[in-house]
Amino acid sequence: MSVKESELIDWICTHSKLDPATVPLGPGDDTAMVMCGSEKLLVTADQVLDGVHFILTEHGPEAAGRKAMSRNLSDVAAMAALPIGAVSTVAMPKGLSRQDAEALFRGMRTAADPFHCPMVGGDIGAWSGPLALSVTVFARPAGIKPVLRSGAKPGDAICVTGNFGGAWKSKRHINFLPRINEARILACRHELHSMIDVSDGLAWDMEHICKASGMGAEIIADHIPIHREAKADKAPGAALNAALNNGEDYELLFTLPASHAEELLKSQPLSVKISCIGNIVEGKGIAMVQPDGKKEELKPVGWDHQT
Amino acid sequence: MSVKESELIDWICTHSKLDPATVPLGPGDDTAMVMCGSEKLLVTADQVLDGVHFILTEHGPEAAGRKAMSRNLSDVAAMAALPIGAVSTVAMPKGLSRQDAEALFRGMRTAADPFHCPMVGGDIGAWSGPLALSVTVFARPAGIKPVLRSGAKPGDAICVTGNFGGAWKSKRHINFLPRINEARILACRHELHSMIDVSDGLAWDMEHICKASGMGAEIIADHIPIHREAKADKAPGAALNAALNNGEDYELLFTLPASHAEELLKSQPLSVKISCIGNIVEGKGIAMVQPDGKKEELKPVGWDHQT
Repeated sequence: MSVKESELIDWICTHSKLDPATVPLGPGDDTAMVMCGSEKLLVTADQVLDGVHFILTEHGPEAAGRKAMSRNLSDVAAMAALPIGAVSTVAMPKGLSRQDAEALFRGMRTAADPFHCPMVGGDIGAWSGPLALSVTVFARPAGIKPVLRSGAKPGDAICVTGNFGGAWKSKRHINFLPRINEARILACRHELHSMIDVSDGLAWDMEHICKASGMGAEIIADHIPIHREAKADKAPGAALNAALNNGEDYELLFTLPASHAEELLKSQPLSVKISCIGNIVEGKGIAMVQPDGKKEELKPVGWDHQT
Repeated sequence: MSVKESELIDWICTHSKLDPATVPLGPGDDTAMVMCGSEKLLVTADQVLDGVHFILTEHGPEAAGRKAMSRNLSDVAAMAALPIGAVSTVAMPKGLSRQDAEALFRGMRTAADPFHCPMVGGDIGAWSGPLALSVTVFARPAGIKPVLRSGAKPGDAICVTGNFGGAWKSKRHINFLPRINEARILACRHELHSMIDVSDGLAWDMEHICKASGMGAEIIADHIPIHREAKADKAPGAALNAALNNGEDYELLFTLPASHAEELLKSQPLSVKISCIGNIVEGKGIAMVQPDGKKEELKPVGWDHQT
């Protein structure tokens, strides 16, 4: 997301008059929440565009379908919710074959099936533009209170699942498995104060939690789990920079009371490793603690899809 | 929708394994229905594409936003349901200004506001392709059983709201008001057996009801209410042809017991005129009764956006 887009979203949020009785959670978190009669309904919509989020000639239509679905499921994971269904619209270049179109929908279903998320509708239109896929996923809390971005508290430990950086060096930005089960396990066992999925980049998404919570963060450089695919670049600081700013890791970034984090790090209840990378502090902005003990301000770099 | 797209949608429907306990209504109607805990949730997704559903340079971004939202609300109307919220994704050409983007969202809100349908989220992405807007609207039955396409019965009267044809001659295909209130009034007063909104064209959407219901239809040519904008073309049969095949009228097409229809035509409970254009019959296909009493088979013409 470029700064301009984020400004536009701010503008939209500011201009939306939402009634908290019917829309308990409006734009600005990983999903929105609306009341469906007596039930809470979570909704998220996201698109993938040829040349931005995937390269059709390189990745193929099945990968495009998979990524479109998985990105949305990752937003559902960030709320610790369970998907109940998906719809999609596809703007299909006129040259695409029937086989390509089938591959595209197979990709969506392949991504949705492990989470019992049925595809229930949508629209296909042929046009002269490039391939654009839009997916909306709706979900329900299913017994777990949705974890928002805005609940981080001073003293919270900041934790992450998995490793960061270099997602575009392999096809990890496409082939990732949304952390829906992991999020539910974490939120069942522990009082999570805030959570987000890392799509824009670890630094940028940390900033999202800080801003939404009215807090600051202290990150310990040495504690950031760097993906092996980000370590190929041997220039000084390049690997750390990639881990902080590449984005599209689709891992969970969450905060919880420090005492809970200790137990969590020890027990490691997930099949993916949990790391503690710092703490929430009063104030604002992100301070990065270097190995020599020096603190530097960490400025998130505008998100760039590496293309 | 071209025949190819409709075949593809058939393929998707065939390959979707849906559990009726969680998805009471899958793809193929105006909306899908999924269970959200104990509540029924209706969902519809539709897109508008520059050069297909609107011409950005001619209609402008606000019109594009309005049409994207209204098309979905028209699908909600076809179920006699009430919208509870909307999300949208926008693939925005890099050249578009901030003002254009704001106009676009203003258009969406202008269309949604009269129906108390809050916009609760979405995604904006800049790209080198043309403008593409995708909107998903979710709705609830709100005390009225959703009216499906599949319930038409032999002997049913076939009725419509409003007039047909020539929607692209003015900006009626953009500036229409979705028939949400009209549908709710009709469904409250009468036992509607089936309903659809006319987007693909009167003939084509009649065919959708016939196929979904396993029925045929007899349409009386003289009874079809032709919009004045379709009457400009004085060639023999041109106006009737436009009314049957132009599409994008976004009026309601519904069937109900003939005895109810008589009362309905007399009382005219809506601010828009209701006409009775024929009857549902056993069998399949649509027969058109000409003024001289001759019956001809009516073949829907492939939908074309007049562009």
